[in-house]
Amino acid sequence: MNTHIEHGGGLDRAIARFSGKAEEWLDLSTGINPEHFPLPDFTPAIWNRLPDEGLLQRVLVAGRRYYNVADDAPIVAASGTQALIQLVPKLLEASTVAILGPTYQEHAASFASAGWSVVECVTLEDVPHDARVVIIVNPNNPDGRIIARPDLLELAMTLGERGGFLVVDEAFADPHVEVSVAAYAATAPMIVLKSFGKFFGLAGVRLGFLLASEKIVEKVTGLLGPWAVSGPALAIAEHAFESDAALQEFRARIDWRRAELATVLTRCGLQEMGGTALFALVAHRDAHAIYDALCEKHILVRKFAYASQWLRIGLAADEAALARLEQALRDILRLKD
Amino acid sequence: MNTHIEHGGGLDRAIARFSGKAEEWLDLSTGINPEHFPLPDFTPAIWNRLPDEGLLQRVLVAGRRYYNVADDAPIVAASGTQALIQLVPKLLEASTVAILGPTYQEHAASFASAGWSVVECVTLEDVPHDARVVIIVNPNNPDGRIIARPDLLELAMTLGERGGFLVVDEAFADPHVEVSVAAYAATAPMIVLKSFGKFFGLAGVRLGFLLASEKIVEKVTGLLGPWAVSGPALAIAEHAFESDAALQEFRARIDWRRAELATVLTRCGLQEMGGTALFALVAHRDAHAIYDALCEKHILVRKFAYASQWLRIGLAADEAALARLEQALRDILRLKD
Repeated sequence: MNTHIEHGGGLDRAIARFSGKAEEWLDLSTGINPEHFPLPDFTPAIWNRLPDEGLLQRVLVAGRRYYNVADDAPIVAASGTQALIQLVPKLLEASTVAILGPTYQEHAASFASAGWSVVECVTLEDVPHDARVVIIVNPNNPDGRIIARPDLLELAMTLGERGGFLVVDEAFADPHVEVSVAAYAATAPMIVLKSFGKFFGLAGVRLGFLLASEKIVEKVTGLLGPWAVSGPALAIAEHAFESDAALQEFRARIDWRRAELATVLTRCGLQEMGGTALFALVAHRDAHAIYDALCEKHILVRKFAYASQWLRIGLAADEAALARLEQALRDILRLKD
Repeated sequence: MNTHIEHGGGLDRAIARFSGKAEEWLDLSTGINPEHFPLPDFTPAIWNRLPDEGLLQRVLVAGRRYYNVADDAPIVAASGTQALIQLVPKLLEASTVAILGPTYQEHAASFASAGWSVVECVTLEDVPHDARVVIIVNPNNPDGRIIARPDLLELAMTLGERGGFLVVDEAFADPHVEVSVAAYAATAPMIVLKSFGKFFGLAGVRLGFLLASEKIVEKVTGLLGPWAVSGPALAIAEHAFESDAALQEFRARIDWRRAELATVLTRCGLQEMGGTALFALVAHRDAHAIYDALCEKHILVRKFAYASQWLRIGLAADEAALARLEQALRDILRLKD
């Protein structure tokens, strides 16, 4: 099972340990935009009927445009990127997969439970010569490390010669479009994963996309089966992908929140060692003590079992939440107001 | 992939052939309740955050009660029964599966594409002695055939001795609780599938359940991965499962609609040869001509490539829709008003 993997969003567990009601907590433990994109009006049919094939096709057309890929680029939608992560190991006979880490741990878990030998690598140079698949989260979660496009393409070609492919998980790439290799997924031996929930602040709806060659997209579509995405998720995505002007303002508010978070962390003497537009990663020798002390104040951030000095801190929804974080950090770090 | 399988709900295709706008059509081609159960108020967090683990657990508790199984019965939720149908063939090494048919065709498609040898049987006596898995939709779609509980349990035990199991798809069993074997799924070699969307009229939300032994439920949970069901689907299910009084009235309206449909079919001289609380199956030597003539009037029912005399007709939402069906049938069958 995947129950041993720690994720952000474990508010239930934090409440069990540190008390309080969910609504009293400030949950900054995920990389999900705290503002969700406005919802469209739903027709009763969106709830009542099976998800409409025509609507799905319109979402795929709009999605191709949003992700800057060709009008005929093969793409498939699933109920969350996680549902796709579960399927990727099944596309090839199990052999060796290398994962550039540390990173989001579900990739390793999914490949391991499908019988693959999983090797975690710190740099591209460490990738074993017999690896048929390599997984790169780009930008990486949690440190924001970015692998340049040419390096990704070269690696994909090398893996293709071995009968394998590169998996690029672009879960956090929406506000970093310049790093995306989605446009190459149709022709290079490469699978690109896109998460809808993080940037749009709609993780609850479960929606993700996979871009790859026609053959792989057809196979994944078959493994998922019909009606893989809910009607409301499709209606939301069609609306969001086509809201160009609103999207620009929405994006600007992410940048504003991110800049404010950076300012607070600097004022509190916490050094950012990475991150993306949706979260900051700080290093501190007392990170776990700070984590516990924040929990005492009912503020949840993300700590890491594999990196005891790291804390990942997501965006605060508004100035009040940010002020609460700053005051808590000042108290804990015994800074003067 | 599964695009060769005909389903109800193909309104897009009917419009392409017979013109009209979607809202002008009367779609009776599915077995989905045309009235959807009232939705709860959604908090912004339901959309914004990852589906909450505590909420999922509450839904499973309420679901066990709703399905009349033990408080500790193993159960797992997925984004629609179809997502579970995709996984069931992966629970055993591929061998022979027997499907009691004709029935919902996605079971056969899923097993076939996972490498199983698929045998369609008309009666239980036809099931080959080397079949390790048998699939029974109960009540059956489209003819409503019901296999009695003792026969199902005996078959499950036989399959268990062969290292296999029985799959009972109870997609249409909610309004026929007396046929359900869900309470035996924890201990017998049996997988029971439950569809949320059909009875509750909420097929768009994608929600289904699988009940089986702890070992199977754990394996399916692992294959699905975390956050397999959307937040709105969970909120809706918690609300619906716990609305005892509203559920009784909701159920009564299904029965009323079904009785009205039966009356109309009888008045039009169409003989019911089966069905469930959510649809009627009629036989007529000119079924395909009637289907086309109904389409000309922008009324969609379900025809069957494998049974040219059958038409499946779902419930009409209200008296106006039912009157429209009756007038169309009278015109087509040249009956006097």
